[in-house]
Amino acid sequence: MNKKASLERITTKTSEGDLVALASTKSKYFLFRLKKDEKLQTHRGIIQHNDLIGLPWGSQVYSHQGSAFYLLQPGIYELVSSTRRNTQVMYPKDIGFIILKMSIMPGTTVIEAGTGSGSLTQVLASVVGSTGRVYSYDAREEMINLTRKNLDRLGLVETVSFFCKNIEEGFEQKNVDAIFLDLPNPYDYLRQVKDALKPGGFFGTLLPTSNQITKLLLELRRNGFEFVDVCEIMLRFYQADENKFRPVDRMVAHTGYLVFSRSILNSDHQLESSIEKPPSADE
Amino acid sequence: MNKKASLERITTKTSEGDLVALASTKSKYFLFRLKKDEKLQTHRGIIQHNDLIGLPWGSQVYSHQGSAFYLLQPGIYELVSSTRRNTQVMYPKDIGFIILKMSIMPGTTVIEAGTGSGSLTQVLASVVGSTGRVYSYDAREEMINLTRKNLDRLGLVETVSFFCKNIEEGFEQKNVDAIFLDLPNPYDYLRQVKDALKPGGFFGTLLPTSNQITKLLLELRRNGFEFVDVCEIMLRFYQADENKFRPVDRMVAHTGYLVFSRSILNSDHQLESSIEKPPSADE
Amino acid sequence: MNKKASLERITTKTSEGDLVALASTKSKYFLFRLKKDEKLQTHRGIIQHNDLIGLPWGSQVYSHQGSAFYLLQPGIYELVSSTRRNTQVMYPKDIGFIILKMSIMPGTTVIEAGTGSGSLTQVLASVVGSTGRVYSYDAREEMINLTRKNLDRLGLVETVSFFCKNIEEGFEQKNVDAIFLDLPNPYDYLRQVKDALKPGGFFGTLLPTSNQITKLLLELRRNGFEFVDVCEIMLRFYQADENKFRPVDRMVAHTGYLVFSRSILNSDHQLESSIEKPPSADE
Amino acid sequence: MNKKASLERITTKTSEGDLVALASTKSKYFLFRLKKDEKLQTHRGIIQHNDLIGLPWGSQVYSHQGSAFYLLQPGIYELVSSTRRNTQVMYPKDIGFIILKMSIMPGTTVIEAGTGSGSLTQVLASVVGSTGRVYSYDAREEMINLTRKNLDRLGLVETVSFFCKNIEEGFEQKNVDAIFLDLPNPYDYLRQVKDALKPGGFFGTLLPTSNQITKLLLELRRNGFEFVDVCEIMLRFYQADENKFRPVDRMVAHTGYLVFSRSILNSDHQLESSIEKPPSADE
Repeated sequence: MNKKASLERITTKTSEGDLVALASTKSKYFLFRLKKDEKLQTHRGIIQHNDLIGLPWGSQVYSHQGSAFYLLQPGIYELVSSTRRNTQVMYPKDIGFIILKMSIMPGTTVIEAGTGSGSLTQVLASVVGSTGRVYSYDAREEMINLTRKNLDRLGLVETVSFFCKNIEEGFEQKNVDAIFLDLPNPYDYLRQVKDALKPGGFFGTLLPTSNQITKLLLELRRNGFEFVDVCEIMLRFYQADENKFRPVDRMVAHTGYLVFSRSILNSDHQLESSIEKPPSADE
Repeated sequence: MNKKASLERITTKTSEGDLVALASTKSKYFLFRLKKDEKLQTHRGIIQHNDLIGLPWGSQVYSHQGSAFYLLQPGIYELVSSTRRNTQVMYPKDIGFIILKMSIMPGTTVIEAGTGSGSLTQVLASVVGSTGRVYSYDAREEMINLTRKNLDRLGLVETVSFFCKNIEEGFEQKNVDAIFLDLPNPYDYLRQVKDALKPGGFFGTLLPTSNQITKLLLELRRNGFEFVDVCEIMLRFYQADENKFRPVDRMVAHTGYLVFSRSILNSDHQLESSIEKPPSADE
Repeated sequence: MNKKASLERITTKTSEGDLVALASTKSKYFLFRLKKDEKLQTHRGIIQHNDLIGLPWGSQVYSHQGSAFYLLQPGIYELVSSTRRNTQVMYPKDIGFIILKMSIMPGTTVIEAGTGSGSLTQVLASVVGSTGRVYSYDAREEMINLTRKNLDRLGLVETVSFFCKNIEEGFEQKNVDAIFLDLPNPYDYLRQVKDALKPGGFFGTLLPTSNQITKLLLELRRNGFEFVDVCEIMLRFYQADENKFRPVDRMVAHTGYLVFSRSILNSDHQLESSIEKPPSADE
Repeated sequence: MNKKASLERITTKTSEGDLVALASTKSKYFLFRLKKDEKLQTHRGIIQHNDLIGLPWGSQVYSHQGSAFYLLQPGIYELVSSTRRNTQVMYPKDIGFIILKMSIMPGTTVIEAGTGSGSLTQVLASVVGSTGRVYSYDAREEMINLTRKNLDRLGLVETVSFFCKNIEEGFEQKNVDAIFLDLPNPYDYLRQVKDALKPGGFFGTLLPTSNQITKLLLELRRNGFEFVDVCEIMLRFYQADENKFRPVDRMVAHTGYLVFSRSILNSDHQLESSIEKPPSADE
């Protein structure tokens, strides 16, 4: 048996094998797993893992140079934020809204494509839990490997099935609850989405340009998707100073437009239903 | 025995007892539970529950007047949005971010106060799942009853413990992972928060005015909270029209400032640790 | 003799013929011109013009029912805002930026089309002053008449020349400093703009949809415009309450995207210049 | 004779003494005044002033290395933007709105304090024109000298009177139309503002923190100011690419909160008026 699922096992003290965030007050995090006899080299001095094992979370600790750090259990937010090594990552502001809008929860089955650097994958896996399932598609093997590594760090790798293939050929699942496409051309795969999504299921995507959005809106209409919502989320941070409370100077102006929709049943399935179609349906 | 957890049991066809959303294309939802021989009265005609039971999700159905509706499984977003009967509700844009920032996931134990109309409670309960727990405090019994009813609708009532009491006296839990205060004066309860929160745990709140924020920032510093983040989230919807893509005319300008922080260990606990304090700690 | 230019003649006391704003503290304005023996009927009582003539600006006055009002000289902002009787008006937030970005100032010659309800016309006329000139085109005579009336109220009618014609045929001016198009299809008139604008002159427009913008961007490039800037301005008001300082609940989410550009000289004119073209110009 | 007012004298060809903007397509400007026999050194080659004198505005010219530039007449926007050498400058997005909200136009008399680096001074001077007047106060002589130099460049120096003194002692003017304070503590000078402003006149300020705003709101109420508006302006630029239309990645998140108000007559002046105060005034 193993204790992988560190994010699910919330403790009050550290143990060997725990994922920790060692944070200075300057909002810089060191994320690593505790390992006996290892040490962490920082620009502000060295810290021995052995000194951290068994300490209560929230403790203040010091490097050999006397620099102060706090010993914290990393949250999903820090983990996603620390994933940002490639330009094309999803931001927590968008991911949080996606989770709600697409009704991702324990037990949900969800497809994502592409896997990318796995920031969304990590949150999906943590939310659907052991009773749900994430199916993640990417044609680039290195992306899958990177994400697998990130998930392993969280003890979540067993919640996700990876498929290294082009989704042009379709998905291998049927009747999943939700599908999120993080690709430049989602409008090319709506038939595949529809085939894999349960009727009434949730579809979502994130696109940076308005040109992509207008193409997608047209294709959604053509492919029997309804209840389309398009939105954008702007996140502005403030200086946490009680004497000088104000927004910070600069912010992210744009990550992408979010599009959500629900797949509806094609009319041919409709005819099988016990409800007769009326002579003329008003809009 | 019953099949409460409708949100966790994702199906492809409706059954009696299911919670359904009957939606016209004009983004108006009727949320109700399917019950044999009942009927739904709408301004666009009557619909028999019996005609809906056993249909695939995503089906298009018609009222006796011929008006079209789609039969959808309600997502958490629709449920939260439909909770909005009081002015003081939390918005999905904020809730989604809270979930991520406070690392709420399956297995998390979380306190919220007050319960309010329960929009946050519903999401917390759905995300922490059966392995987690929500402790919800409110001094107003009617709020607890309302929220209990909303949770029951989702089959989530057993995930939440309610406490009808003033939090001035403190919380009954220890070492919870996260605490969210949805109260006008969270700065008055930081000692109680600290007592109930595990070291390093996540604290969050939402406050409408800058005056409340500056008071809170001062008290957070005084009570041993670190890593304070203050932010606001703006959500703007767009017209989903491929020929006239543009933001809608009006939007919500403000719900509140979000504040997040982490409880750190007081220095007296610190002294018990095996790490010696250095002669002089730099900042 | 006439006392038209009330906006330019700033006084400390009212005289007959002055344009006044009678304002309650609830930010509701009555805008009218003082006329001996007339009276103003409000829902909070009657006010005699005779009682207002000769009073210092800023005085508090009372209706026969005892309701308090302040006697203010209307600013350009109030006048523009009060113009809002049609849906298609320009907002001060956009107009202020246009004035700066297009370098409108005393002495500037500027074309606008269409005239619309004249909110921009009023500001242009007030800023270019007696040494500048506004040329305003609209095919709808009723719009010109409405704007003429609004300008007359400000004593600015003589600064503006109106042209009731379709701009398809071109503008009657040459070498104007700036041209602003407030039309749904500015991309159809860029040749006409170029013909009337001095080389290097300022072009601007405001368009609600991204579809219009992308069409325009293409045509700007084709027609020899450079230094294209596209932006949007969001204006958020706050509650002016020192104990509850916060943004108001709702705001305008969108008026339009602003586009600015500068007309450059076509290469055939270029050849006349004394500077030789280099063998190969890098970009 | 002098050719100061270069911004008012709009021409189609350059002459010696003209202020020019030499711009590459990459939105980099060189701002300078044309002078016979001088040369401009750029990182992309040398350009002789003699080659530019007499050319039509909007011409494309080349450095000796063959790099292309456009010869443009600088607008007020470019001039204000190029003023940004100190951190504390005002942005065009705010200045444009201030001009409208405070009804600055040809003929207006306006006080500003402090002068700062003069970005607002330049716009005020250009808008009030030769029939208006700007009175600019700053206790730091170097700021006044810097601004005077910037104004001279624009031929606007004669429109502005400078006062190198602390405004604690009051302003030397009476009955000006508008006063703008660009100072960290405007709440300390409201009596002085009131003394110098005509009754009903326009007051404005820009403050970065909410703490300053709440102090100011209190003092405005105490000092007989009404019609207080607080707002903020967010400006977001877009990529001007017809195939990839989207907001740019990052933006300025905050410059300051704008506050506007109007000075009303104190009740003692009120009593001199011919209108009797009613027994009891409702609000």
